[in-house]
Amino acid sequence: MKLLEDRILKEGTFLPGGIVRVDSFLNHQLDPALLWELGKEFARSFAQDGVTKILTVEASGIAIAVMAGLHLDVPVVFAKKAAASNLGSDDIYTAKVHSFTKNTDCMLNVSSKYISPDDRVLIIDDFLAMGEAVSGLRAIINQAGASLAGVGIAIEKDFQPGGKKLREEGIKLVSLAVVSFDENGDIAFKAYQ
Amino acid sequence: MKLLEDRILKEGTFLPGGIVRVDSFLNHQLDPALLWELGKEFARSFAQDGVTKILTVEASGIAIAVMAGLHLDVPVVFAKKAAASNLGSDDIYTAKVHSFTKNTDCMLNVSSKYISPDDRVLIIDDFLAMGEAVSGLRAIINQAGASLAGVGIAIEKDFQPGGKKLREEGIKLVSLAVVSFDENGDIAFKAYQ
Repeated sequence: MKLLEDRILKEGTFLPGGIVRVDSFLNHQLDPALLWELGKEFARSFAQDGVTKILTVEASGIAIAVMAGLHLDVPVVFAKKAAASNLGSDDIYTAKVHSFTKNTDCMLNVSSKYISPDDRVLIIDDFLAMGEAVSGLRAIINQAGASLAGVGIAIEKDFQPGGKKLREEGIKLVSLAVVSFDENGDIAFKAYQ
Repeated sequence: MKLLEDRILKEGTFLPGGIVRVDSFLNHQLDPALLWELGKEFARSFAQDGVTKILTVEASGIAIAVMAGLHLDVPVVFAKKAAASNLGSDDIYTAKVHSFTKNTDCMLNVSSKYISPDDRVLIIDDFLAMGEAVSGLRAIINQAGASLAGVGIAIEKDFQPGGKKLREEGIKLVSLAVVSFDENGDIAFKAYQ
């Protein structure tokens, strides 16, 4: 998606260890008009996939997911990253995930109330790198007995294996910008669709 | 705002200690169409206040704030709740806040890049109870040398002092639903505007 690629080129910063920082429009400051367009593009991409629910992870996934939910007209559920006392005593689906960026483990928690076996779930997230968050969300979808409609990612890091693994499994993956580096170490974008 | 009040009556649950749970549309599952309407109402309420930026707190504030930002056509910044390694080494504004719901302290962090002295900042959050989050966000606005345009809240708890303190200070506070309880302990809504 050229709009997003252009914005990454203009404002993104690239740090050692494969860290891509887009704090000025996606991860700390948010550009609502851009997010609206990303949501519209996800809705267009998954319009024929029978999506009944979107699942994401707090915090950076929420803004993108809610825009996709607006355009697809489906509810959004965000997994909470730690057992919160005000999540109550419902049955909770959980999955442990590792953050390579922060080098920490955390638990994803989703109340069983909000995903049912009838749901066709679209996973939306800001980044896809090692694929840990998506794996955790898929584990939660499996616990619920729901089915996976696909995975929508704003920025995929082509130099890390998360996207490749999903494509090899035959899962429908739509990444709006796939960041790669050419032989000079300059940023380049790939297109998988 | 009747739309929100009706939804609270239909789906909200009320627990001992003044906890109001609206997990089915605001705090865990999100209803994008409802959030769109809340954002529109905030934009209408603050249209004349010269807002240049919206400030909120992760995670539950993000969806409401981004909808308000969409309608007001301004960027949204969300304060991060812990020093994250991928926030980088920028100068960071910080404020300590106490969560009475969770009985924990946490730090709010905002990069100095995203609030400037020229900004007129609208604070948006999902709940107003003791007023801790709003106090922390105001401290950050002060550190930035920016000015406060007002405070927009989805659900204010009238039986806790956060809203009263802001009104006594003369701050423009718009709460879309003000939850109170009548003498029988039944839920009632107040109107301050």
